[in-house]
Amino acid sequence: MLSAGKSPGSNFPAIFDEVASIGAQPGEGVTRLAASSEDGMARSVFANWMAEGGARIAHDAVGNQFACFEWAGKDAPWIFAGSHLDTQPRGGRFDGSLGVLAAGYAARDLHADFLAGCLDPIRNLAVVNWTNEEGARFQPSLTGSAVFCGALALEDALALQDVGTVALRDALAAIGIDGENGEVPPQPEAYIELHAEQGRKLLEAGRRIGIVEGTWAARKTTIKWTGRAAHTGPTPMADRRDALLAAALGIVAFEAAVASSFPHLHRSAARLVVEPNSPNVVVDRATVWFELRGPNAEDLDRAWQLIVPAFKKAAEDTGTRMEIAADTLRAAANMETALLALVEETARTRGFEPLTMHSVAGHDAVALQNSGIPSALIFVPSVDGIAHHPEELTQPEDVEAGLVVLTAVLRRLSEGGCHAG
Amino acid sequence: MLSAGKSPGSNFPAIFDEVASIGAQPGEGVTRLAASSEDGMARSVFANWMAEGGARIAHDAVGNQFACFEWAGKDAPWIFAGSHLDTQPRGGRFDGSLGVLAAGYAARDLHADFLAGCLDPIRNLAVVNWTNEEGARFQPSLTGSAVFCGALALEDALALQDVGTVALRDALAAIGIDGENGEVPPQPEAYIELHAEQGRKLLEAGRRIGIVEGTWAARKTTIKWTGRAAHTGPTPMADRRDALLAAALGIVAFEAAVASSFPHLHRSAARLVVEPNSPNVVVDRATVWFELRGPNAEDLDRAWQLIVPAFKKAAEDTGTRMEIAADTLRAAANMETALLALVEETARTRGFEPLTMHSVAGHDAVALQNSGIPSALIFVPSVDGIAHHPEELTQPEDVEAGLVVLTAVLRRLSEGGCHAG
Repeated sequence: MLSAGKSPGSNFPAIFDEVASIGAQPGEGVTRLAASSEDGMARSVFANWMAEGGARIAHDAVGNQFACFEWAGKDAPWIFAGSHLDTQPRGGRFDGSLGVLAAGYAARDLHADFLAGCLDPIRNLAVVNWTNEEGARFQPSLTGSAVFCGALALEDALALQDVGTVALRDALAAIGIDGENGEVPPQPEAYIELHAEQGRKLLEAGRRIGIVEGTWAARKTTIKWTGRAAHTGPTPMADRRDALLAAALGIVAFEAAVASSFPHLHRSAARLVVEPNSPNVVVDRATVWFELRGPNAEDLDRAWQLIVPAFKKAAEDTGTRMEIAADTLRAAANMETALLALVEETARTRGFEPLTMHSVAGHDAVALQNSGIPSALIFVPSVDGIAHHPEELTQPEDVEAGLVVLTAVLRRLSEGGCHAG
Repeated sequence: MLSAGKSPGSNFPAIFDEVASIGAQPGEGVTRLAASSEDGMARSVFANWMAEGGARIAHDAVGNQFACFEWAGKDAPWIFAGSHLDTQPRGGRFDGSLGVLAAGYAARDLHADFLAGCLDPIRNLAVVNWTNEEGARFQPSLTGSAVFCGALALEDALALQDVGTVALRDALAAIGIDGENGEVPPQPEAYIELHAEQGRKLLEAGRRIGIVEGTWAARKTTIKWTGRAAHTGPTPMADRRDALLAAALGIVAFEAAVASSFPHLHRSAARLVVEPNSPNVVVDRATVWFELRGPNAEDLDRAWQLIVPAFKKAAEDTGTRMEIAADTLRAAANMETALLALVEETARTRGFEPLTMHSVAGHDAVALQNSGIPSALIFVPSVDGIAHHPEELTQPEDVEAGLVVLTAVLRRLSEGGCHAG
C-alpha cells in the first residue's frame, strides 16, 4: 500500500541507481549484456533486495529469476510482474530495469501491507527478471520468456552462441546458474510489465501512462554472403568475390526498396559480421542482421518479395553466394482485453488518463501474450523518444506515475480482480 | 654452398612445416597475428633453429628479430635477408614465412661453408623477421621495417592498438619482448627478400623466378561515419541517423566511381568496424578501411577527388557525420638497379630466366628501399595467384628455385658482389 505521507518513489531511486551503476561507463551508458559478469552482479543485487523484502528467490534453467511472494498459499494461482535486467551495449538505464525494479518495489510494498493485514490476496505474486530480452549478445531476443512459455526449447536456448562462440549455457554457468534452483512458480494467470515507451507518443499526447493494446509484427532475417578471401593488392579486380561489397549493395538496396514501396515500415540493418575483417584481405564472409517491422505480417511479406531478389542481385553482381541464415517472424499481437480494461480503470482511479497505443518493439509481455498468458504492457514516457542510447530518460514524475499504477494493478490482481479465481 | 649430391630443399620442408603448423586450423589456414602467442611460438622456433645453425640472436625494441652471422668481423658491413612470420587471419603458409625461412636455410648453408673454409665473406649476414608486416592486427602494415628504417617513430609504433585496445607495446611484452635485446646490427648495405608472387604473372609467363623492378603506389584511407544509437523498432525512420547505412552507401559509391573512371586501379573496402553492432540498435559508428592501389600516386589523387564527395554525400543522405580518421600514401617505388642486375645474372647462371615485373602489394623490401636501403624482391610463383587465403600454395620445385637463387645471391653479396666494400 502506498501509505499516507509516503512518497511512492521514496526508496526507488536508491535501488534503481545501484543497478544502473552496474556496467556503466561515463558518457557510454550501461553495458550489461545477458549472462555477463555485470548481469551476474545485477542479478545478485536484485535477489538480495527482494529477499530482504520477504521474497523467496528461484531461477529456472535458462536463468529467469523469480522473486516469489506466496501470499495465498502453495496451490493458489500466480500473477507475474517484471521485465529484464540485461541491456544493449551502451544502452540506457531504464529499458528493462525500470520494469523489474518497479515491480519489485511494488511487491515489497504490497508484502508489507500483507504482513500488516492490509492485503487480502487470493493469488501469489512473482517478480520476474527474464534472461536475454535484448538479444544483443545472443540472438534471438526474448530468450528467457520464450523458453518459459514453451515457444523456444530449453536446449536450443542454452546452445545459442555469442560472437565469441560462448554458449548461453556456459555463460550462465560462469555466473553461477547451472540448472533450475528453488521452486519455480507455474504459468501465471496474468503478467504485467511496466516499460519506457521508447517513442514520443505519450509526450506528444501529454499523457503519463500508456496502455499497449497491440504490437507490430517483426521479421528478422539474417543474410550471409560468401565470397573468397584474397589479397586486396595484387588480386585482379575481375577475380575478386567481395562479400563486403555484396553486403553493402544488399543494405543499400534493402533501404531503397522498402523506403520507396513501403515507407510506413520500420527497417534496419544494425549488425554486420565481417570475416576475416583485415584491411588487406578481400572479405570472405559478411553476415547482416536485417529487421522489418510493421502493423501486420502481410505488409512484411509483400516487402520481402521485393527484397529477396535485391539480395540475390547483390550476390550475382559480386560473384558471391547468398544464403538466408535465419528468418523469423514475430506476429502482431493483441494484448489481453480484460486486463487492459483493468489497467485503464485503475489508472483513471489514480488520476491518470491513459493513452491506448501500439508498441513497435517486442517485449517479454508480447512473448507471454502470444503464448496464451494474459499480459498487459504499461508505458511511461521516454524523453525525446530516445532508446538504446546512453541518454535514455524517463522523468521522475513519470516513473512515479508508473509505480503508482503498477502497484495498484498488482494489488487488484492479487486480491482477485480480473479473471478472478 | 649447395654441396654436390645435396638437394637444396632437403631440410627445408621440416622447419617450414613446423612453423606453418603454429596457428593452423584444419581448412582455416594459418592465423598467426603479430605479437600473438602464436607469433611468439613461431619466433622461438625460428630463433632456436637459427641458433642451432650458428647464429647470434637479437631483437630490437619493436620486436624485429635478427639472426646474426658475423663472418667478416664486428666492423664489417651487413647484408640482410628475410621477411615476416606474422600472417593474416586464416592466411596462407607461404606469405612471409617462405622469405624468413628460406633466408635462414640459405644462411645456415653458407655458415656451414664458412666453417669449412668454402666462403670468403667481406660482409656479415643477418636473417630478419620483421614485426607486423601484415597490418592485420595493428595498422599500419610494415610496422617493424618502417621503425627500423626510421620512417615510423618507435613510440608511435608501440602505441598502436588492436581492436581490443591492446597496445603493440603490451602485446610484445606478453610474448617476452620488452625493449631491445642483444646487439642489433646497423643498417645493411643490401636487403634481399624472397616472397610468393600473390599473382599469376609468373605462371602465365612460364617462369620460376620474378625480379621486382618497381611497386605500385597505395593510398589507405580510413573513413568514420558517426550517427546516433537508437532503437531499431519504435524510432521513427525520419529520426534515424544510421552510420551503417552511410558506410554501405560509401562502399557502393567508392566501387562504382573508381570502376567507371579508373578501372585499372585496384580498390577494396576490407575492414569495417560497427558500433555497437547489436541487431536492435541503429548503428552509432561505422569505420571503413579503404584501399586504392595503382602504378602512380597521381592516378590515386585523381580518383580521390572523385571519391571524397561521394563519402560526404553518404553522410548527408543519412544525417551522419563523416570524418577521415586516417589517410596514408605509400609512393610507388623503384627497386635498386644494381642489385636487380646481380639477382638477374645470378638467376641466369643457375638456369632460371627471370621475369622482370612490378609488385602491387607492399613488402618489407619496399619499406627499406623507400628509406634508401638498396633492396631486391625476388618472387616465386603462387598457384592460381591465390594469396591471403588458406589455399595459398607455391609448388616444391618453385620453392627450390627460389632457395637456389636466394642462396647464390647471398653468397655473392657476402663475398663482395655489388656495391662491394
